[in-house]
Amino acid sequence: MNLPTGHNNPQPVDAAIVPRFGAIPTFMRLPYITEPTQVDIALIGVPWDGGTTNRAGARHGPREIRNMSSFMRKVHHVSRIAPYELARVADLGDAPVNPIDLMDALKRIEGFYAKVHAAGAVPLSAGGDHLITLPIFRAIAKKRPIGMIHFDAHSDTNDRYFGDNLYTHGTPFRRAVEEGLLDPKRTVQIGIRGSIYSGNDMEFAEKSGMRVIYMEEFAKLGVEKTIAEARRVAGDGPTYVSFDVDGIDPAFTPGTGTPEIGGLTTLEAQHLLRGLQGLDLIGGDVVEVSPPFDQTGNTALVGATLMFEILCLLADASARRRNR
Amino acid sequence: MNLPTGHNNPQPVDAAIVPRFGAIPTFMRLPYITEPTQVDIALIGVPWDGGTTNRAGARHGPREIRNMSSFMRKVHHVSRIAPYELARVADLGDAPVNPIDLMDALKRIEGFYAKVHAAGAVPLSAGGDHLITLPIFRAIAKKRPIGMIHFDAHSDTNDRYFGDNLYTHGTPFRRAVEEGLLDPKRTVQIGIRGSIYSGNDMEFAEKSGMRVIYMEEFAKLGVEKTIAEARRVAGDGPTYVSFDVDGIDPAFTPGTGTPEIGGLTTLEAQHLLRGLQGLDLIGGDVVEVSPPFDQTGNTALVGATLMFEILCLLADASARRRNR
Amino acid sequence: MNLPTGHNNPQPVDAAIVPRFGAIPTFMRLPYITEPTQVDIALIGVPWDGGTTNRAGARHGPREIRNMSSFMRKVHHVSRIAPYELARVADLGDAPVNPIDLMDALKRIEGFYAKVHAAGAVPLSAGGDHLITLPIFRAIAKKRPIGMIHFDAHSDTNDRYFGDNLYTHGTPFRRAVEEGLLDPKRTVQIGIRGSIYSGNDMEFAEKSGMRVIYMEEFAKLGVEKTIAEARRVAGDGPTYVSFDVDGIDPAFTPGTGTPEIGGLTTLEAQHLLRGLQGLDLIGGDVVEVSPPFDQTGNTALVGATLMFEILCLLADASARRRNR
Amino acid sequence: MNLPTGHNNPQPVDAAIVPRFGAIPTFMRLPYITEPTQVDIALIGVPWDGGTTNRAGARHGPREIRNMSSFMRKVHHVSRIAPYELARVADLGDAPVNPIDLMDALKRIEGFYAKVHAAGAVPLSAGGDHLITLPIFRAIAKKRPIGMIHFDAHSDTNDRYFGDNLYTHGTPFRRAVEEGLLDPKRTVQIGIRGSIYSGNDMEFAEKSGMRVIYMEEFAKLGVEKTIAEARRVAGDGPTYVSFDVDGIDPAFTPGTGTPEIGGLTTLEAQHLLRGLQGLDLIGGDVVEVSPPFDQTGNTALVGATLMFEILCLLADASARRRNR
Amino acid sequence: MNLPTGHNNPQPVDAAIVPRFGAIPTFMRLPYITEPTQVDIALIGVPWDGGTTNRAGARHGPREIRNMSSFMRKVHHVSRIAPYELARVADLGDAPVNPIDLMDALKRIEGFYAKVHAAGAVPLSAGGDHLITLPIFRAIAKKRPIGMIHFDAHSDTNDRYFGDNLYTHGTPFRRAVEEGLLDPKRTVQIGIRGSIYSGNDMEFAEKSGMRVIYMEEFAKLGVEKTIAEARRVAGDGPTYVSFDVDGIDPAFTPGTGTPEIGGLTTLEAQHLLRGLQGLDLIGGDVVEVSPPFDQTGNTALVGATLMFEILCLLADASARRRNR
Amino acid sequence: MNLPTGHNNPQPVDAAIVPRFGAIPTFMRLPYITEPTQVDIALIGVPWDGGTTNRAGARHGPREIRNMSSFMRKVHHVSRIAPYELARVADLGDAPVNPIDLMDALKRIEGFYAKVHAAGAVPLSAGGDHLITLPIFRAIAKKRPIGMIHFDAHSDTNDRYFGDNLYTHGTPFRRAVEEGLLDPKRTVQIGIRGSIYSGNDMEFAEKSGMRVIYMEEFAKLGVEKTIAEARRVAGDGPTYVSFDVDGIDPAFTPGTGTPEIGGLTTLEAQHLLRGLQGLDLIGGDVVEVSPPFDQTGNTALVGATLMFEILCLLADASARRRNR
Repeated sequence: MNLPTGHNNPQPVDAAIVPRFGAIPTFMRLPYITEPTQVDIALIGVPWDGGTTNRAGARHGPREIRNMSSFMRKVHHVSRIAPYELARVADLGDAPVNPIDLMDALKRIEGFYAKVHAAGAVPLSAGGDHLITLPIFRAIAKKRPIGMIHFDAHSDTNDRYFGDNLYTHGTPFRRAVEEGLLDPKRTVQIGIRGSIYSGNDMEFAEKSGMRVIYMEEFAKLGVEKTIAEARRVAGDGPTYVSFDVDGIDPAFTPGTGTPEIGGLTTLEAQHLLRGLQGLDLIGGDVVEVSPPFDQTGNTALVGATLMFEILCLLADASARRRNR
Repeated sequence: MNLPTGHNNPQPVDAAIVPRFGAIPTFMRLPYITEPTQVDIALIGVPWDGGTTNRAGARHGPREIRNMSSFMRKVHHVSRIAPYELARVADLGDAPVNPIDLMDALKRIEGFYAKVHAAGAVPLSAGGDHLITLPIFRAIAKKRPIGMIHFDAHSDTNDRYFGDNLYTHGTPFRRAVEEGLLDPKRTVQIGIRGSIYSGNDMEFAEKSGMRVIYMEEFAKLGVEKTIAEARRVAGDGPTYVSFDVDGIDPAFTPGTGTPEIGGLTTLEAQHLLRGLQGLDLIGGDVVEVSPPFDQTGNTALVGATLMFEILCLLADASARRRNR
Repeated sequence: MNLPTGHNNPQPVDAAIVPRFGAIPTFMRLPYITEPTQVDIALIGVPWDGGTTNRAGARHGPREIRNMSSFMRKVHHVSRIAPYELARVADLGDAPVNPIDLMDALKRIEGFYAKVHAAGAVPLSAGGDHLITLPIFRAIAKKRPIGMIHFDAHSDTNDRYFGDNLYTHGTPFRRAVEEGLLDPKRTVQIGIRGSIYSGNDMEFAEKSGMRVIYMEEFAKLGVEKTIAEARRVAGDGPTYVSFDVDGIDPAFTPGTGTPEIGGLTTLEAQHLLRGLQGLDLIGGDVVEVSPPFDQTGNTALVGATLMFEILCLLADASARRRNR
Repeated sequence: MNLPTGHNNPQPVDAAIVPRFGAIPTFMRLPYITEPTQVDIALIGVPWDGGTTNRAGARHGPREIRNMSSFMRKVHHVSRIAPYELARVADLGDAPVNPIDLMDALKRIEGFYAKVHAAGAVPLSAGGDHLITLPIFRAIAKKRPIGMIHFDAHSDTNDRYFGDNLYTHGTPFRRAVEEGLLDPKRTVQIGIRGSIYSGNDMEFAEKSGMRVIYMEEFAKLGVEKTIAEARRVAGDGPTYVSFDVDGIDPAFTPGTGTPEIGGLTTLEAQHLLRGLQGLDLIGGDVVEVSPPFDQTGNTALVGATLMFEILCLLADASARRRNR
Repeated sequence: MNLPTGHNNPQPVDAAIVPRFGAIPTFMRLPYITEPTQVDIALIGVPWDGGTTNRAGARHGPREIRNMSSFMRKVHHVSRIAPYELARVADLGDAPVNPIDLMDALKRIEGFYAKVHAAGAVPLSAGGDHLITLPIFRAIAKKRPIGMIHFDAHSDTNDRYFGDNLYTHGTPFRRAVEEGLLDPKRTVQIGIRGSIYSGNDMEFAEKSGMRVIYMEEFAKLGVEKTIAEARRVAGDGPTYVSFDVDGIDPAFTPGTGTPEIGGLTTLEAQHLLRGLQGLDLIGGDVVEVSPPFDQTGNTALVGATLMFEILCLLADASARRRNR
Repeated sequence: MNLPTGHNNPQPVDAAIVPRFGAIPTFMRLPYITEPTQVDIALIGVPWDGGTTNRAGARHGPREIRNMSSFMRKVHHVSRIAPYELARVADLGDAPVNPIDLMDALKRIEGFYAKVHAAGAVPLSAGGDHLITLPIFRAIAKKRPIGMIHFDAHSDTNDRYFGDNLYTHGTPFRRAVEEGLLDPKRTVQIGIRGSIYSGNDMEFAEKSGMRVIYMEEFAKLGVEKTIAEARRVAGDGPTYVSFDVDGIDPAFTPGTGTPEIGGLTTLEAQHLLRGLQGLDLIGGDVVEVSPPFDQTGNTALVGATLMFEILCLLADASARRRNR
């Protein structure tokens, strides 16, 4: 997949010709290409929320993120990264799912990503609830555990629910560590907050070696030092960016299943993401956008914009790897 | 359970003393009583939508139906049935569920209803999606198949989805017939409409002997003849009333998962229900109220009012059985 | 006030010059005139819901009805009545109110209408909750009791609430009869429905001689016979039209405090109103539009349109009286 | 274009494999095909509301109608028409528009439809405001005037606005008659209602020979006689179906720019459309769905369902022409 | 009331067994206990907004705060306070009110709280509008004036409205000082802002000795110095925490009657509250959550979370007093 | 126009007599005065969004800003400016527009403002989209170019769209510079952000000499230094304040056509505006409030409050000029 890139790359529809409200909405108004070998970065929807223990709705996330991604333009105004110059990017459509059978859904999702990974494409996904990250990891991190920059209100390292259920959107990263997919020592969690079930809730995250930056610590550290700490933890190895929109305050992202007040602002989130440029980023996702709870549409707009921010990082990382 | 009833029965909170927006909301503002032997009619929530193949949200139905049921008063203005005089009625809380494991959820629900049934109480349930009716039937119709008056836009007699999944909110009544719980010859479906997958969609319903009154036939028959036909089909045997709010037009009930335009008005639905007085009714439910899609709250109000209509029927049937 | 009318009458802003969304919104886009002697028909807002026992919000009714009344044009498409040719009509602004003192509010409202009445102007009001009709009656019906065509889901002839409170939006017409303002034998109530507190709820209405047409009777009579019955009851005497928007089904008018399903359609309501042409109409109101519960704005649109329907009736009656 | 059709025709995505909330939304979940010669019936969005004199928003109509069209299945449950068996149908994307230059937009739209028409494809469009029908007519009715079955609250035969502007969504059918595109004697308008500017508003429609069935006349005629009258007017010639969703009551379709209460129910609208089977139908549109005013999404659902109803008619007409 | 506490205390429903959307919603999912002697801290709803001079709706606050409080867990993630270990806490239901008689409502509320106070329970209330704090003070501060930490956009020390009305939600703290219930010298107001009626608006607050920290001063001081100042003012005496959600910016809390832009963030509010640990806190309330204006539900979520924050403070203070 | 001002100036309706939800809504509840010679500061609505390339709706801005401006009181709580003491201020109604002809609309708006300017009144406008500022400039800056403090997410200095269209809401300030109305060297833009079409997007703004303070620079500078820079750029000359509400983060102002996440908070915006006191301010506007996308009404509240902030600045500047 180390093909040359440039002006023949897929390009978004031009908003000075086709207005933003026009045309069938794909991610970033890019072409819909189903063949992963034709892209460097694959934008993928995972319309599934079968792991949700409280308010469902993230199954509708990909459609509304696609809708709102029509607002995105072509160049990042701060980093000046032009992702469609640096990489071949397209909308690969949605991963297959099963809304009524959790275990089957996990398999279908993994299978889809395995093909994308085999084709050498880097996945950037729109969830869906946070459990989707587990089958993605199973597809892309089989050979060696990866690091992760994880934005979230919740650690998602719980053990089980409703008796003995191991797989919910509250458990993916415990499972990922247990399965050897995620390296906890190269994992940083940012924005964690909210009341807890017991004093032991964070035990797994902390004992396994994850670096947990609670919202309160973030408020003290500020953006720059948090970036430095995240970079220190992730190091040089392959790293994934997983962004649960409930890491942001629900004034900005009301459309999510488990909102917690007192979160990040979107400006802070953007600054944090921009600080990750230069890491060896190999994938990313934006999850837990839940349109039925998103009356203003702002959550989907935040989701689309964060996808664009991560896309710029991935395109830059992709170009760096090509030029190495 | 043939105890005398009357003024010592549980009564709703008095709205001339505690305003309707006050107090913790139970069904009909009745006491919360967890012991089924203390009631004749058990009002039960089933906060579960794990069988939903499209838009989830019915898991939130019981809470909002309880909220809106505060509008209900004590006597039916047409039939003059005073249900709390005729029967001991209470809110029994919610059946246990499991939002991430369909098969486990079906078992938990069945178990709860088995206890209610064993105590001799008649259940009136607020869903939840329509698959909840299957475990209810497993609990109350084990000994002999029952008849059903079924209001719905869809026949819910599909076979399977997403590969080989037998249990979704589109399949409960095929399963119920196959399991010997539902007598198709004593089953009438009213309000069926909407585009279909193929010309064979209604094959099971029709071949098994269900009487399907499409919306178009209803428009021609009118209310009175439809009632007569429903009574003819149900006959004298034990009969259940299952009301999917998508049987009603989505102008009235937008908050549902699979809306179909061109449905019943609420006035027609009320008239149809009132026409069932005198049947041997042994239970009922109102399902598919989905609050995240119910911006005006009207769907939950319709749900609560239909529950009150059915409650009057059940209280009357209960009193008749007692007096036999 | 038997002045000649015609082309010098106040006229609405022209929508082919100033678009409907432009300009400060007055009722029907008419001039704002504070002097009642300058008009034949006074359009008045009563932004008050202090008599509301459940969901407040009708205090915001006049503003949103004014907003939506920008949709109204100048001539009735069926009766061809051109109200602004027949009568001098203007927006007189809002009656003074007191949101925190019920008894003071009733006095302020009565005082305002007394001046309007003394000037010879016929009032057409936008509520506010239904208790506002009582002080209006005190101002305009002091000399002799009047008749009423009353559209509503509720009879509003209850006695007291919350201990000994005599004045709520559930009691105005019992009070009006007791005070000799309303002639119950010339009163007809249309659309009454919904569960009741006890079998005696309608006792006052029925014993006093009001003609109560329940929704169920209306469904059987149909529009034409209901009109005939209303005209028979009202007879030749002075008659007031009071329209509580909850008389209409909440699919059409969700934005109201005490919705009851199974109500009139707007088309039926319009046909019923049109059937009142020729009666000696001396005032009217549209009440219980509650914008905080009116997400689509449709309730305010219904309110504005019903005001226009009644305005045409009043202008016609006014012209007839002038020509007698 | 008289190619054989059948099982190789484009087919919708299968909802038993890909859930309805999944995949990039095209009309009816059909393939996106940009070459009109490959289809018999072209589903086209026209995201433009530049002719709107009051509340804009219909520019967002095609996206939301596409979203909601995921609810549609493959066979009509009453007529049993299976449109994808009878014809090759696909989503051709959106016509080009210009949101800030009305005259340029009309030209762009006409040019797009001219190509579709030249390819022999029958267009079925989702607006956009009602002015879009004018450039469509310019493209498809150049050779001879066509007939029209027109559902609407408004006649749309006004002359000019805001000085001398000839082109707004209130004028298309006067222009179409003047330009010789529309045969007024073969035009029927159903559902017309609402207050009017003056007694002369309907003069053009009536003098030119259009058959105007006001809502009030429809209420008396009923569905069957209205169908008969529409068929009589349209006769054997080529006929277009134009459906402005404000023809329906705003309880069903709140999301529209110029709502008028007292309209058709969706069931009536469906029955009326079904009655047009057998006419020589050569195109159709559903216009004035305005998502920013459509809080429940029901207007878009109505729009999508009416498109499916008209699609079945067009597929049937197309098959009949092929078999002639 | 100095009973031992611990594991036999009332506990919330376990969300790993009963999902958060299930069960009848009580505050924090705690048991509903009507006997105040059985609790140390009484969670109470006051569904009343009769003192509201502008937009009503806070009467619906307790229900929605209860709904959203299902999101709360058991332990504070920063202070590690486990309130249900430290104290017996329960939902005591709603105080009695009267929606149509202000003076009667004040008496009913006072009477209810007098019993709670006599039983030795500390009240934590969910309003309702801010006038409810006055009758609470009458019940709990009769013997000696108390101090107050008051979060609000408004000082609520106005004198009268609408003639001579002394009691509105803009006047409670002037009345409380006049009645000797509130010690102004031990009162601090945080977040005050917004345009004022005249330059004298704050005269009473300032002359009486209250410490007013305007939003602008807070922006300069920052969280830590504001906490220090609040602690200095409150000192060692018994102190009440009153939180009007309009103290927070309406981006976070749109659902309130008198929003003022430029307010606190929720994170700032949480930090401020956490800084009050160790004061001799004897009660608290969260008021002015108005669900009809809270389209996203976020205001109720903020209200529920602030209640949990204050509950932790009260449980800690309660345990300290017990251990003194 | 250097008339004495003071207590005979127009005053807002008193909220302690007429509640805020009462009366016909004018800007700030001021009198409606159509004669510009009678005012020093003219509050004007421009209900027009014909230059909008994406989501329309700002045409409804003036009405909702008027509605929400009822929340404003009479004195600024920080600066203590009492605008109605310092100047004669009134609502002059709406400028004439044309929703379907862009060029005609620009002429009508310019003509209206030319009269206001000729009368010596300072305009403060509520848009409408940002293109309205161009005709305002044509009316008030004909003689000499003016400076501008411009709050916005976008520079609005694009060249053309949809072929050769020169006039959209993305181009006004390039046109204003080209026409010699705006002095780019005395222009500062604050809050600029969001992805861009190409690396050259900001070329015109920067080459012409505008001072562009991107959101990222603002985050580093802070409020005080940004104010100092803005004052330095504007200098002593006549200066206009133009506030596009999308300069603020869409969590605060969701109701706008082109939201960009990561923007100003309202508190920052207020502080920035307050820092402009003392400049020679000669007009201002608040634009791009789009009610159809403003579900909570908060955007209109922000718009009304920013208008009040700017009004205080203009009244102060007006008094200073009078006293020079």
